[in-house]
Amino acid sequence: MAMRRAGVSAIRALCSSPNSTRPVHSTAGSKKIVGVFYKANEYAELNPNFVGTVERGLGIRDWLESQGHRYIVTDDKEGPDCELEKHLSDLHVLITTPFHPAYVTAERIKKAKNLQLLLTAGIGSDHIDLKAAAEAGLTVAEVTGSNVVSVAEDELMRILILVRNFLPGYHQVINGEWNVAGIAHRAYDLEGKTVGTVGAGRIGRLLLQRLKPFNCHLLYHDRIKIDPQLENETGAKFEEDLDAMLPKCDIIVLNMPLTEKTRGMLDKERISKLKKGVLIVNNARGALVDTQAVADACASRHIGGYSGDVWFPQPAPKDHPWRYMPNQAMTPHISGTTIDAQLRYAAGTKDMLDRYFKGEEFPLQNYIVKEGVLAPQYR
Amino acid sequence: MAMRRAGVSAIRALCSSPNSTRPVHSTAGSKKIVGVFYKANEYAELNPNFVGTVERGLGIRDWLESQGHRYIVTDDKEGPDCELEKHLSDLHVLITTPFHPAYVTAERIKKAKNLQLLLTAGIGSDHIDLKAAAEAGLTVAEVTGSNVVSVAEDELMRILILVRNFLPGYHQVINGEWNVAGIAHRAYDLEGKTVGTVGAGRIGRLLLQRLKPFNCHLLYHDRIKIDPQLENETGAKFEEDLDAMLPKCDIIVLNMPLTEKTRGMLDKERISKLKKGVLIVNNARGALVDTQAVADACASRHIGGYSGDVWFPQPAPKDHPWRYMPNQAMTPHISGTTIDAQLRYAAGTKDMLDRYFKGEEFPLQNYIVKEGVLAPQYR
Repeated sequence: MAMRRAGVSAIRALCSSPNSTRPVHSTAGSKKIVGVFYKANEYAELNPNFVGTVERGLGIRDWLESQGHRYIVTDDKEGPDCELEKHLSDLHVLITTPFHPAYVTAERIKKAKNLQLLLTAGIGSDHIDLKAAAEAGLTVAEVTGSNVVSVAEDELMRILILVRNFLPGYHQVINGEWNVAGIAHRAYDLEGKTVGTVGAGRIGRLLLQRLKPFNCHLLYHDRIKIDPQLENETGAKFEEDLDAMLPKCDIIVLNMPLTEKTRGMLDKERISKLKKGVLIVNNARGALVDTQAVADACASRHIGGYSGDVWFPQPAPKDHPWRYMPNQAMTPHISGTTIDAQLRYAAGTKDMLDRYFKGEEFPLQNYIVKEGVLAPQYR
Repeated sequence: MAMRRAGVSAIRALCSSPNSTRPVHSTAGSKKIVGVFYKANEYAELNPNFVGTVERGLGIRDWLESQGHRYIVTDDKEGPDCELEKHLSDLHVLITTPFHPAYVTAERIKKAKNLQLLLTAGIGSDHIDLKAAAEAGLTVAEVTGSNVVSVAEDELMRILILVRNFLPGYHQVINGEWNVAGIAHRAYDLEGKTVGTVGAGRIGRLLLQRLKPFNCHLLYHDRIKIDPQLENETGAKFEEDLDAMLPKCDIIVLNMPLTEKTRGMLDKERISKLKKGVLIVNNARGALVDTQAVADACASRHIGGYSGDVWFPQPAPKDHPWRYMPNQAMTPHISGTTIDAQLRYAAGTKDMLDRYFKGEEFPLQNYIVKEGVLAPQYR
């Protein structure tokens, strides 16, 4: 059955039978697929596995074209005259990534009359207006799990960079200086500190496992408790009340999706109740926090350090205040796009395209919107 | 019994009875104790626990003076007219640290006619001429274990910083740039990589435990195998032949003491046999590696990244090549002097002074030279 913007209610009825083997995707004919990735430029030739780029296009061009499909790849995604806009009117599938996000607005969805499928090469589809996608009866899916290890590792790196006060020492080195006191007066061991993760989904759970040997006090807040075995293995304690957990933490890690409920959740008022000197790691989404409130609290030293790879918008403008606030350890959005992660999300995207062409279901956990119906955590 | 440079052979005879409870340290009278630490300067007032500094002097002044001892603290340790030199002739105890090392040469030991005890506040006593200290019948001891957790945590941070290519991203942020490709083309997950530690003593073993959840291939080389239970728990494989292990590693961590046998062990020839792009972490001692060979291999990209906090000499001069080589993630010597570590090594130093005054033995593992006899690993 074709996903041709059929009435959402009919689709909902279909989806209420999750064990249905009835093909739900269009199988007919040649498709036009557009992928929006970041450009590798001079780095393209340096690594044969650098597949998540315009130049390599996930490594699926030959495969797509051999099946008669058209494949357009670009990094040009902004404004009314960009390359992406030119293809909106007749594309069937749009592949985007969180690292160089093409914002898929309600307006763009309206223009894309033939659009059936929005695939996120990676995890995190908040650059897509999910409500508009659902209303249009579309399917939105991502490569769930493809970079959860990558992001969890990166979070642990950032925790250590902040708690051990790495960057002032590095700056001394490159500036020809040597002043141990300037670093050591606020360098600590991670051992014994209280670390709380807001969200204990796939990434949060992997982080807890990696934190376990560091002998911290581990706390987590989520809608539901994690598996008792994992809770036992990691020693992490469930905190039902977010606002009761946050002020206990020396280190807070954000690990939840960006939804209308979570947008701006770490605002000025919540920050004011955190421990003085608290360290915050956010590889989830920039818009989870109030940008200026974070910058102000870093300036006043109420936040002792802030590290993450997510911003709003992306790319971060040159004058984004997080670039210049004290005790930041920020990077562009990279934690989920290691070479290892690229190979995984390229394979996962190819797998979903293959299933789409064949009219087969995707792995259930990949769906964000399934033919007009939002996954529960996004409702 | 006083440690008054009695004939070494007599002392050896004494020490051959490890269960002896006979007091071996001088108990008589007021002692002159000199401590050489780094200065806190403007950072002194920022943290009440910043005890490893000239200003706080390990927090033991009141305790020492209340017992009638004299306590001189300085950071002035270089050249013939420095503060340390002025006190050499009549000091009984010299406390030094690896972070701001006072080099205790044979010449200085000769001048220090009353010297009985050399205490290292921290771990690593290679700034002391141990042979000369042994020949003079002295005791050298450090606070074994005081900062092993601190250093192991720091090593894992540095592994992640290198493997995930953190610093180019950070530089983009502060330079107002955004170029994901410039980072991602050589950013990897730690998962699945081969990590080898050269040395699996206290720090190496803690590192292996912390690496365990990252699902790496863990290798270790040491003179002896680690406890079978720990080997089983971490999955680390023993490599008897160092030169067989090194070329297998994606990441090499140095975790052995600096001795005459290990000095310069990572030289040009050994580096040439490593995997192209190998990452190296060295929080052990700068002189374990050939400084220029490392700089050259970073420049040629044979070494893909080098991170550590140890240099030779320390402080590193402004023109030290490691400050300016590509893909370095260096800091001054700080990993073992977190606030948590300072509190532990201050307490351990106080404990040994207390035992010294009372004529009691130190914890056995603290001895580097016990009344003229070198600990086995330094012979």
